[in-house]
Amino acid sequence: MIEAGRLSLNQATVKNLSVAAAADLCARHEIEGIGLWRDRVAECGVAESAAAVRRAGLHVSSLCRGGFFTHADPEARAAALADNREAIATAAALGADVLVLVSGGLVPGSRDIGLARRMIADAIGDLVPAAQQAGVRLGIEALHPIYCSDRCVISTLGEAIDLASEFPADVVGVVVDTYHVWWDARLPAEIARAGARIFSFQLADWVLPLPADVLLGRGHVGDGAVDFPAIAAAVEAAGYTGMIEVEIFNQQIWDAPADATAATVRDRFRTILS
Amino acid sequence: MIEAGRLSLNQATVKNLSVAAAADLCARHEIEGIGLWRDRVAECGVAESAAAVRRAGLHVSSLCRGGFFTHADPEARAAALADNREAIATAAALGADVLVLVSGGLVPGSRDIGLARRMIADAIGDLVPAAQQAGVRLGIEALHPIYCSDRCVISTLGEAIDLASEFPADVVGVVVDTYHVWWDARLPAEIARAGARIFSFQLADWVLPLPADVLLGRGHVGDGAVDFPAIAAAVEAAGYTGMIEVEIFNQQIWDAPADATAATVRDRFRTILS
Repeated sequence: MIEAGRLSLNQATVKNLSVAAAADLCARHEIEGIGLWRDRVAECGVAESAAAVRRAGLHVSSLCRGGFFTHADPEARAAALADNREAIATAAALGADVLVLVSGGLVPGSRDIGLARRMIADAIGDLVPAAQQAGVRLGIEALHPIYCSDRCVISTLGEAIDLASEFPADVVGVVVDTYHVWWDARLPAEIARAGARIFSFQLADWVLPLPADVLLGRGHVGDGAVDFPAIAAAVEAAGYTGMIEVEIFNQQIWDAPADATAATVRDRFRTILS
Repeated sequence: MIEAGRLSLNQATVKNLSVAAAADLCARHEIEGIGLWRDRVAECGVAESAAAVRRAGLHVSSLCRGGFFTHADPEARAAALADNREAIATAAALGADVLVLVSGGLVPGSRDIGLARRMIADAIGDLVPAAQQAGVRLGIEALHPIYCSDRCVISTLGEAIDLASEFPADVVGVVVDTYHVWWDARLPAEIARAGARIFSFQLADWVLPLPADVLLGRGHVGDGAVDFPAIAAAVEAAGYTGMIEVEIFNQQIWDAPADATAATVRDRFRTILS
């Protein structure tokens, strides 16, 4: 159903590799897209990163990530906006399909979740002109509610769509990451509602038990609870035709040889999604 | 705003105590209600448990718990229904305000979350006549999405309301537990929609970091991210006039002297909610 050529490897899945090494890995495994991370791009330099992925014949499906807008201190908020403007410039230089936004948790010292949400909406509004000018799309990612207090108060796809809908549809959209949203009874309806606002589709499985660091509890596609064919069919039906990233944070996978990881990513994509 | 007399201590907060010891603890700390657990009630016997709480002058605000309806094996489903019928009888004997239902996770061997939800709806439908006859109310509890795969596929208050709404409003309602639902942007609207279907209101705080056993990551009211006054005001505005339980699963709290725990529960309730 889904062509293998739409697979993209998010660099976080092979966290130990540089941009150049990750790009070579993709080329070796006939993976045609890559999702990049700003820290790794900065290490290598933006121009050199762009050249490395071009040499490997890869499409940049995303740049991770901007966001973290919720600060009590106005200077910290201004610094976050400046950092996001830099991220937009980097995304433009790389030709990334989307800059992924992880919005931020509760404002330090406050339990007012509405305040955090308003701060995020304000920040995205500030960034929209820069994104428009650079031709960069911003993708609001809903994170699993487990991360609500400290990383992202946008906890459902529905909330991400509501927020994106305040802005032009060609500039602000949403990221559908199976790990974060698979549990939601409203997911099929919200994916349909998102329609052309779906700027990115990312895959990771929900596996138990959660590790001590709950950021790292993701598994290879097929190892856990997520019904990937059903979610992928809904995303397809909503009109999404972009690349599909596999993005897994998992210490054991990071400790494994990168070639084995890439082979598993590709095999699972073909057997479970294609 | 909220009278101190509405505080109830859920027995799970002082897990090491028998029903009789927990009842005495409540009496010593001028806590007028208690939420009981079936395993502890069984230890002591149903009639003796009822006598112990009566002697202590306590109201039984809930019995925990029924549910766990999602089984692949028809015999296991039948056994779950039989167990829930027994729980209904126990709740009636104790005069509990509600039997709390934790619905169950994915059906073993299946990733079909819709199947799990249909199985839960069927099971509750089977139990409604018995509950009606016994004069027992069933409260569907939404659990935090972190528990979706293994404990409860009903992850939001909205979902719990939708499910409860398939049944008579005087028999099937919902449990609002702050720990499970605080993160939800739709929470205020869903609490208002729940109205008289709110059969129980439980308090615990969301504290980070999560412990290795993610069931035990709850904190005393005021120690974490939850905005209790805002949620309590919404529950009050929806018309809820019942008892308010503090139910905390936390190893350190279990290891603390029960009198210290009860004193903290009472003080926090008075300073933060009353």
